[in-house]
Amino acid sequence: MRKVKVGIVGLGRLGRKHAENLAFRIPNCELLAVCSVIKEEAEQVQEEWGVKYAYTNYDDMIQNKELDAVLIASPSGFHCVQIEKALNANLHVFSEKPLGLYLEEALQVQEAVNKHKDKVFMVGFMRRYDKSYSYAKKQIEEGKIGDPVLIRCYGLDPTKAIDGFMTFAKNNYSGGLFLDMAIHDLDLARWYLNSEAKRVWAIGGSYGYPEIKELNDAETGAALVKFENDTMGIFVAGRNCAHGYHIETEIIGTKGTLRIGTTPEKNMVTVFDENGAIKECSDGFLERFEQAYLSEVEEFISCIRENRQPDVTVEDGVLSTALGYACKESFETGELVSVQSPYKVVPSSL
Amino acid sequence: MRKVKVGIVGLGRLGRKHAENLAFRIPNCELLAVCSVIKEEAEQVQEEWGVKYAYTNYDDMIQNKELDAVLIASPSGFHCVQIEKALNANLHVFSEKPLGLYLEEALQVQEAVNKHKDKVFMVGFMRRYDKSYSYAKKQIEEGKIGDPVLIRCYGLDPTKAIDGFMTFAKNNYSGGLFLDMAIHDLDLARWYLNSEAKRVWAIGGSYGYPEIKELNDAETGAALVKFENDTMGIFVAGRNCAHGYHIETEIIGTKGTLRIGTTPEKNMVTVFDENGAIKECSDGFLERFEQAYLSEVEEFISCIRENRQPDVTVEDGVLSTALGYACKESFETGELVSVQSPYKVVPSSL
Amino acid sequence: MRKVKVGIVGLGRLGRKHAENLAFRIPNCELLAVCSVIKEEAEQVQEEWGVKYAYTNYDDMIQNKELDAVLIASPSGFHCVQIEKALNANLHVFSEKPLGLYLEEALQVQEAVNKHKDKVFMVGFMRRYDKSYSYAKKQIEEGKIGDPVLIRCYGLDPTKAIDGFMTFAKNNYSGGLFLDMAIHDLDLARWYLNSEAKRVWAIGGSYGYPEIKELNDAETGAALVKFENDTMGIFVAGRNCAHGYHIETEIIGTKGTLRIGTTPEKNMVTVFDENGAIKECSDGFLERFEQAYLSEVEEFISCIRENRQPDVTVEDGVLSTALGYACKESFETGELVSVQSPYKVVPSSL
Amino acid sequence: MRKVKVGIVGLGRLGRKHAENLAFRIPNCELLAVCSVIKEEAEQVQEEWGVKYAYTNYDDMIQNKELDAVLIASPSGFHCVQIEKALNANLHVFSEKPLGLYLEEALQVQEAVNKHKDKVFMVGFMRRYDKSYSYAKKQIEEGKIGDPVLIRCYGLDPTKAIDGFMTFAKNNYSGGLFLDMAIHDLDLARWYLNSEAKRVWAIGGSYGYPEIKELNDAETGAALVKFENDTMGIFVAGRNCAHGYHIETEIIGTKGTLRIGTTPEKNMVTVFDENGAIKECSDGFLERFEQAYLSEVEEFISCIRENRQPDVTVEDGVLSTALGYACKESFETGELVSVQSPYKVVPSSL
Repeated sequence: MRKVKVGIVGLGRLGRKHAENLAFRIPNCELLAVCSVIKEEAEQVQEEWGVKYAYTNYDDMIQNKELDAVLIASPSGFHCVQIEKALNANLHVFSEKPLGLYLEEALQVQEAVNKHKDKVFMVGFMRRYDKSYSYAKKQIEEGKIGDPVLIRCYGLDPTKAIDGFMTFAKNNYSGGLFLDMAIHDLDLARWYLNSEAKRVWAIGGSYGYPEIKELNDAETGAALVKFENDTMGIFVAGRNCAHGYHIETEIIGTKGTLRIGTTPEKNMVTVFDENGAIKECSDGFLERFEQAYLSEVEEFISCIRENRQPDVTVEDGVLSTALGYACKESFETGELVSVQSPYKVVPSSL
Repeated sequence: MRKVKVGIVGLGRLGRKHAENLAFRIPNCELLAVCSVIKEEAEQVQEEWGVKYAYTNYDDMIQNKELDAVLIASPSGFHCVQIEKALNANLHVFSEKPLGLYLEEALQVQEAVNKHKDKVFMVGFMRRYDKSYSYAKKQIEEGKIGDPVLIRCYGLDPTKAIDGFMTFAKNNYSGGLFLDMAIHDLDLARWYLNSEAKRVWAIGGSYGYPEIKELNDAETGAALVKFENDTMGIFVAGRNCAHGYHIETEIIGTKGTLRIGTTPEKNMVTVFDENGAIKECSDGFLERFEQAYLSEVEEFISCIRENRQPDVTVEDGVLSTALGYACKESFETGELVSVQSPYKVVPSSL
Repeated sequence: MRKVKVGIVGLGRLGRKHAENLAFRIPNCELLAVCSVIKEEAEQVQEEWGVKYAYTNYDDMIQNKELDAVLIASPSGFHCVQIEKALNANLHVFSEKPLGLYLEEALQVQEAVNKHKDKVFMVGFMRRYDKSYSYAKKQIEEGKIGDPVLIRCYGLDPTKAIDGFMTFAKNNYSGGLFLDMAIHDLDLARWYLNSEAKRVWAIGGSYGYPEIKELNDAETGAALVKFENDTMGIFVAGRNCAHGYHIETEIIGTKGTLRIGTTPEKNMVTVFDENGAIKECSDGFLERFEQAYLSEVEEFISCIRENRQPDVTVEDGVLSTALGYACKESFETGELVSVQSPYKVVPSSL
Repeated sequence: MRKVKVGIVGLGRLGRKHAENLAFRIPNCELLAVCSVIKEEAEQVQEEWGVKYAYTNYDDMIQNKELDAVLIASPSGFHCVQIEKALNANLHVFSEKPLGLYLEEALQVQEAVNKHKDKVFMVGFMRRYDKSYSYAKKQIEEGKIGDPVLIRCYGLDPTKAIDGFMTFAKNNYSGGLFLDMAIHDLDLARWYLNSEAKRVWAIGGSYGYPEIKELNDAETGAALVKFENDTMGIFVAGRNCAHGYHIETEIIGTKGTLRIGTTPEKNMVTVFDENGAIKECSDGFLERFEQAYLSEVEEFISCIRENRQPDVTVEDGVLSTALGYACKESFETGELVSVQSPYKVVPSSL
């Protein structure tokens, strides 16, 4: 089979990384087109990496008949519409999380995906493709820790990224802490516990950065979730982690426990100096999940070539979003919230 | 000043350890009397360690005019009454946790303590005297992590102790998972966060040992607590920890984070074998807190000699118990519970 | 500039990995030809990855005028001759270590390289391109640990690879423990200490596998090296490491210490089970140095495109080999050995 | 049996710690007398801890007929004579290491000990009584790591102690780096490997503190030792460890490896801050070996009460000293040194 020809929309930090991977590091794939509303950005990437087409308009790009697939790395508010358009243009679609900023959008994506079952659709829950996370999944499936009982997830952005976030959040709707930061963890919990959330209580506040409270958002928050199979989930999300980008996941089972990234170490170096024995920590998501960002897109390309769907589905995107909204509601009302399955609530719209 | 003469009641595992410490390892202290309802036990300790008096009846022991103080290590159901009697007999009192099995008992102890302000009273929250826990407290007081935001506490008993627990729990009221196991953590949270609990949601279940459910108790549980100063507490308690006795505490602050015992390592040896690099884990509380059990009683003796009260007070016992009961109520009802301050609820009974 | 067209010789485990990287993961590079004496091997790779040419004869391959460069991953005994031929055919050359099985071969390679200064030549000391090792180098250059004083290097192959090694070693000259296993560490020591070796004492034996002694080789050995700038090197090499592939390097400086890979962890998962808290360990070099094997060849391709030479030079290959031979001689004689600089010994041949 | 009555000579840092342990923390023991050439020091301890006798003259103390035993914690130069005198006064003797500053002194002690076989004699190799070190010994004896192949020992004093050392060393003969710092490690190696040293090469220098070279000593040094059973020992000793007191020991066996103290962590707290995840390190020997200093003297008292000899013998002191002198000779001459068994070399002097 010939190479899969991909166009990418969005050339921000993560978009550029995806573009570079598509151009150089993914077997059997060609980066055919790039698209950015910032013309210089698109042209610079085109020239630097020898990309055939550059666009400033997404609708133009998806009309290109040479394309097999698009990778959507634009701002979250555009995901839903761009996914729908690409599917309608008969393209395979990889979209960064979230499916949209609102649950309704996620459901709209799902409807579109269901109409195009011949197309590969994948949402960028890259952690499932991180070699440590996938190793943990395998250990669980092999019964290494017995039955999972409780999952604890930390998703903490580094303090040094907080100014950038504030600037963004003052001008845009981010979805809030639980939807924006915790969404990956909510997906992981569903994946490892093999169950859906039933009830949630979420609390939080703005401890070091009170201005976040003015946005009706939390700087640091915690949620406790009861799942349908009576397992438990603990989620801590935050934007003010002094030591770096701290993504840690623990699954406690009846016969053992797994921890992933319990120290978010940057590399295999330990520094000993007058402070003690130091493991320096990850800077951010691009450093921590470099391999996962590559592997998820490899899987996307393989799915296209092998005419199959990835394990992570549009339903994973919808259900994680629904749980994120339940967390958000609980945080905002202060009360226990029952998680509404979107499939029961809006069946008629499907 | 002459040596402080102490009598001990209860010579079970922990009682024997306290007795040995009093006999040999605590400066300026003499183990004058031992008391156990099991006559052979009392006599054996008397003989082996050269203790002057041995009793089978607690009331007899506290009549001994040579005594300055008692250490109460009897079963939990006796604590309240024995504390009261000892104070009335004009003795300084060190009591193992809890103050009693019911909140009313804790308040009764408090009333007795308040009537005998000239006597030193101390409850056995030994973790505060563990050198790692006290080091963490000092770091926080020095501002090392800014303001505390969230505490996470794990209190997990080893799987291999579960048969012993089941035998005990079938015949006795243990208080349940949150009062029996989590009480130390609830005290630590109040100590580190410097605030009282406001609301709690607790969930749990019996995953590997369904027979615990028949006792209306949980094998493993989790609680999320909102404190009055808006800080957060996460508590995981359990009786089925495959790798040993896992006591871990983390305090996340606005400028840094502290973890205590993140791997509950037995000692400083790492074993490398075909399984990988292994840190063996603590067996149980006597191994993990050997130094703390000694240091807390040293502090008790010092308080008597120096005519001062310890930092851990009877109120700490009462308030931790009140929080424990709130967790228990939440677990049993499935609902969010507001923590009732015992001082507001029952003022007339005092 | 157009893509660099590369031919590879040798399609064993490491050769295949290099071929895959050249085919799919290295920017600006095309795997144009593969060569293996095993015809099926070459044809299978050709077909699977769509490689234009497949050869069973190295001389044929290097006559291909489309080629810009060769990557040599054949058995060690062929390196010297194949390097020389490729340079004479006006090709850029990347060769796996060692430059040859004998010091004379290394010097012969050096002579050839010096005759073709317009060609990029690189020897596969991949560890310098591992992100942890290169991070440590940067820390040292920035003065983080003051002046390096002592380096300690462990290079231990897993026990489970020993049967394969024995089969190989009974039929081939491996170079012996210090040349075969320790050569990467000897290069690292020279790199980090910025000095050449002066004297060495090496000892060792065959503790679990006495049959290695019959080959006049050591299963596990240790060498102490004094460098010209009075710094010290400790090298432990072995073929019987129960827990896996243990590559660890420590640099002690006047103001701090760096350790790389002090636990050779497989990934970021910690498993807690009845054995304790376990970090599983690396299986072997392909797992541990996956990123480094990719990065070194990326650097090779970049050097060709940018018309510059890599930091690791043919002299590094020669001098590390000379030190390896001194270790071997010391081990065989039991005595202290002065390291002979090949540049003083054989100047006339240059 | 009645309490063992002990007199102590030397009330420096370690002496005071021993005195405090004897006074308060060792079962079945009474601190009867203290002796220091500094009168105020002796009187202050006498008064503070209620000690019956205080002396400024050692000869006077050992005439006290109430004494059963002495603990010698005076400067190293006095050990030999004070041991001999105490044995001749019919007292049990615990002496801090070393037995003397010269090998001749160690042999003289041995002769005295052999003349008083009814007396308990113990040399303060406290590490054998550290719970991690003794656990490792037990693991080895149980075959956990197969046969020991190589031991690596780090004995590094903290940089912040170097000024104190320089002041001392300018006015006193310390024995030099290998005898003063490495002697504990040399004993451990003999204990774990169960063999005596055969040949040694030791190197070193003064990297951050050139003034140490003027004393003909090394600031940091390394020795490689071949043992009689062909096992290997690597010893790194130093006085300039930026991160603290680093005592680490590794035993590599044919089936596994043990590491003790691979990070010399101060306690169980991990600090996460902008530097990363930090384990603070031990300050010095009193902090690291607090438990061992207590346990070794407990064992001494138990030996007296139970009329038996400890596992660590005067021969351990002699043979470790002999190996230390071989290291020193190798360092000073730059050459390989054969370790002379004192039992073969100087039989006539015995």
